[in-house]
Amino acid sequence: MNRYAIGVDFGTESGRAILVDVADGRTLASAVHAYGNGVMDRTLPADAGGAALPPEWALQDPDDYLQVYRTTIPEILRASAVAPHDVIGVGIDFTACTMLPVTADGTPLCNVPEFRGERHAWVKLWKHHAAQPQADRINQVARDRAEPWLARYGERISSEWFFAKALQILEEAPHVYQRADRLIEAADWVVWRLTGEERRNVCTAGYKAMWSRAAGFPSNDYFGALHPDFADVVDSKMSRELHDLGERAGGLSDEAAAWTGLLPGTAVAIANVDAHVAVPAATVVEPHRMVMIMGTSTCHMVMAPDEQTVPGMCGSVEDGILPGRFGYEAGQSAVGDHFGWFVDHAVPPAYHDAAAARGQDIHVYLQELAGDLAIGESGLLALDWWNGNRSVLVDTGLSGLLLGATLATVPEEIYRALVEATAFGTRVIIETFEANGVPIHDIVACGGLAEKSPLIMQIYADVTGKTFRISASDQTPALGSAMHAAVAAGARAGGHATIEDASRTMARLRDTAYEPIPENHVAYDTLYREYVRLHDYFGRSGNDVMKVLKGVRARARAGRTAGTSAAVGV
Amino acid sequence: MNRYAIGVDFGTESGRAILVDVADGRTLASAVHAYGNGVMDRTLPADAGGAALPPEWALQDPDDYLQVYRTTIPEILRASAVAPHDVIGVGIDFTACTMLPVTADGTPLCNVPEFRGERHAWVKLWKHHAAQPQADRINQVARDRAEPWLARYGERISSEWFFAKALQILEEAPHVYQRADRLIEAADWVVWRLTGEERRNVCTAGYKAMWSRAAGFPSNDYFGALHPDFADVVDSKMSRELHDLGERAGGLSDEAAAWTGLLPGTAVAIANVDAHVAVPAATVVEPHRMVMIMGTSTCHMVMAPDEQTVPGMCGSVEDGILPGRFGYEAGQSAVGDHFGWFVDHAVPPAYHDAAAARGQDIHVYLQELAGDLAIGESGLLALDWWNGNRSVLVDTGLSGLLLGATLATVPEEIYRALVEATAFGTRVIIETFEANGVPIHDIVACGGLAEKSPLIMQIYADVTGKTFRISASDQTPALGSAMHAAVAAGARAGGHATIEDASRTMARLRDTAYEPIPENHVAYDTLYREYVRLHDYFGRSGNDVMKVLKGVRARARAGRTAGTSAAVGV
Repeated sequence: MNRYAIGVDFGTESGRAILVDVADGRTLASAVHAYGNGVMDRTLPADAGGAALPPEWALQDPDDYLQVYRTTIPEILRASAVAPHDVIGVGIDFTACTMLPVTADGTPLCNVPEFRGERHAWVKLWKHHAAQPQADRINQVARDRAEPWLARYGERISSEWFFAKALQILEEAPHVYQRADRLIEAADWVVWRLTGEERRNVCTAGYKAMWSRAAGFPSNDYFGALHPDFADVVDSKMSRELHDLGERAGGLSDEAAAWTGLLPGTAVAIANVDAHVAVPAATVVEPHRMVMIMGTSTCHMVMAPDEQTVPGMCGSVEDGILPGRFGYEAGQSAVGDHFGWFVDHAVPPAYHDAAAARGQDIHVYLQELAGDLAIGESGLLALDWWNGNRSVLVDTGLSGLLLGATLATVPEEIYRALVEATAFGTRVIIETFEANGVPIHDIVACGGLAEKSPLIMQIYADVTGKTFRISASDQTPALGSAMHAAVAAGARAGGHATIEDASRTMARLRDTAYEPIPENHVAYDTLYREYVRLHDYFGRSGNDVMKVLKGVRARARAGRTAGTSAAVGV
Repeated sequence: MNRYAIGVDFGTESGRAILVDVADGRTLASAVHAYGNGVMDRTLPADAGGAALPPEWALQDPDDYLQVYRTTIPEILRASAVAPHDVIGVGIDFTACTMLPVTADGTPLCNVPEFRGERHAWVKLWKHHAAQPQADRINQVARDRAEPWLARYGERISSEWFFAKALQILEEAPHVYQRADRLIEAADWVVWRLTGEERRNVCTAGYKAMWSRAAGFPSNDYFGALHPDFADVVDSKMSRELHDLGERAGGLSDEAAAWTGLLPGTAVAIANVDAHVAVPAATVVEPHRMVMIMGTSTCHMVMAPDEQTVPGMCGSVEDGILPGRFGYEAGQSAVGDHFGWFVDHAVPPAYHDAAAARGQDIHVYLQELAGDLAIGESGLLALDWWNGNRSVLVDTGLSGLLLGATLATVPEEIYRALVEATAFGTRVIIETFEANGVPIHDIVACGGLAEKSPLIMQIYADVTGKTFRISASDQTPALGSAMHAAVAAGARAGGHATIEDASRTMARLRDTAYEPIPENHVAYDTLYREYVRLHDYFGRSGNDVMKVLKGVRARARAGRTAGTSAAVGV
């Protein structure tokens, strides 16, 4: 008798559900729902008054998440013809930190009529960057107080994380903060909506809210030093009770059963984060194997049996990826985004025409041309900082650099230089892990770039000197969520006893692996040395020109807004 | 009774003649002839066997120059309806160093049948860059011997110059060198073709052949140290008799009169160089006023009453621009070429479409968008080294750099950053002059960029803090040649006694001047400081990454040619 599990992956623009066989991980059906209100970065929805949002804001509508349940799960049940009683569990993963203020029963504040027009009542999406002043103070106060947890996060807390966003609500909209009974990760909130019970996960707490198994959250003293009314934020708005990944959060409520067509009581797993849940779904349950989730940005996930201080990581969390291991996360804030930017803004008509004439996507066409180049033939070198540097420099004030252009430089050379730059950035991350007690034996990649571009993967293998394997699933995070659902259901229900069991049974690799070609690796060593020299010069205080330019830019834009433009008069 | 002079400007792709009134400089007619064989950088002409040329070669066909005389002068006479006896003189200017081997009677060796298929028998155009090994040795031997003349040329002789090209002929084709009775600048050769007499000019000798009024040419000992058979190059292949600019080279020969429709005996002026002849035609006859000839590249010309050692100039030559002054030349090897490269290789279809829809040239469209940006608003900074750096670093091994890009960077921002980079490069040149005893009071610009782009000129004024005036003529070099023709004819023939007189009478400025806007100059100071920091770091041995990359590129290409490509195998 076959048993099935459902994984729901909540992304930035849409949510996707898949239905998989717990015996072999085979996907029987998949469905996507694009969020009706998408990413709100200009205005609130019309029915909320449509107020304009300041720069750097990025909100979402929590009803869009529930709509994912209502549309995709019925659709995959229908498409797969699987009976609801054969579905043993549901698991979800989410972007993080994506958080919202809710009432005690879980009602989003933005759905409370008197708060609907209040921007702070809505979901703050992971890429809401307007809490930078709060993040700056979080870091400054932590440094001043020598808070021990700062080292676990590369000595810098991001404006994207939980307490920066929470503090922004308190400071900019105290009435919203006051009215919010709970501040919660959207990941935990969507699980709550399925079960009717608030059960928070250790993963987002550890990676986004400075929690650790050993030390818990930062002290109330510390939070009080940020703002007197913030001292009790954990106890008054959050929870110190946290649940391990793979635990059963509860059974499906009658209401959620009605939304989805599943049976009431179906096991629901504790929430997970998209990058973290991908690790066992990419077959990795052992220490010292890296999983790279490669898309517009890249996350680098690796586990170790012990805690090491690795400078410039996003975070290291005990049990943060798999129970019983320390999970390390690093990242590159733009990878595919570099190539997307280039194609949108810097590729001339002749190339678009040639790709169209051949019926090729422009990326495929450029990669084909770039693949014909020998290593170093372009004479170009880039720093992959078009969106700052997340690891190991942890500095959003850095910006992109392209060096070596001549009058003979052609687009495919720049495209390849950008690919190589992101590979060099990954090598810096790997070498930083390895130099700090976390050796990396090999790498499993998943995500769009890994699946679609042999050239990119071979360059990564050649640059890093590591073997790259590719996850067989084209929806690795959703598969990971389904695996966690199978674990939450448990072996007796036909699921799995542990995530390791689920991984061995349900996760697969593709047959193709990318092995480093020794002479290419040697050729890239020369370029990598130059990359590191530029990386350290511009990234480690040799020359602060990127910061100076960003400062000038900010003042120029502010002056323009204020009507005192310094535009050149001709 | 009106008197007229003809100026012929021999450019890279074509030659242009204008007929002007010597009383006021008014142009009555203008005609262009494109060289039939153009720039030969791939093969010799079919009637010479069509042999392939190696990389970095650039040749021309001397018959194309004579064809300019035969077509353009009859055409301007016809168009202006000026009678030949009212034309008092002809002057020419040429690119330099553009040189050829000829027999004793001036016949180009490439027109001697047994040499026609020999590539070294043709004209080596200024941008023939295949004599780099010879230039390297010229420099090394000069440094080893502490040759005093090296300081006049920024401590570095270019592969474009006379003796590098001559030595290449000797070393690679000794039979051609042997057979050549004379090695001569094309400038002097086309004058010889008009008059029947070999009369060489001081300008190309000074700027391109290491000659000076005080010291003459380098010693035979020095030339002998380069190659034993090169010791007597000056005496056996050239001439120590040199003539000042504005002198009469001779009268038009019967043969040349027949080509042109002018009268035999019409005064012909000593040859000049395009950039140098532009100075008095841009109204500048005083010291300390810079003339910038702005096109694909830019030349910076300035005179001083005395000799100063200004590091990194192209050269300083007594009487090299105007008699009685020291003339200094500096340059930027790519200016308009940057913008042309960008438009050809890095502007997406939407911009081309928008420009076309508005009936605008893409440069005009981009400049319009770029003009709406405040200073520093792009956050970008570039080094204008897409074609190396001619002054003040004198280093073709440098390459382009763009810094500050983000995912929000748009094409007009990069375009403006490239314009600004070239303006910063000019400011470095100006400041180097001023720091070394050659103050610059103001600037007169001529050439395509100066005439067509108010935005670019205002940025140059704002960046440098100098007033930019614009030459009224849209053919400033040709006007300068006509002015020298009027001087060669002399006052008694209705011309002018001196080039200063000719300049005051015949040269004009436009009414528009570009004044630096004080607050813009201050705003650019910040960006310029950062430019200089990058300029010195990459240009003055802080980081040799550009050289390393060019070395890697050269090896990658050589490997590819040799069939041992290191291309990535996928």
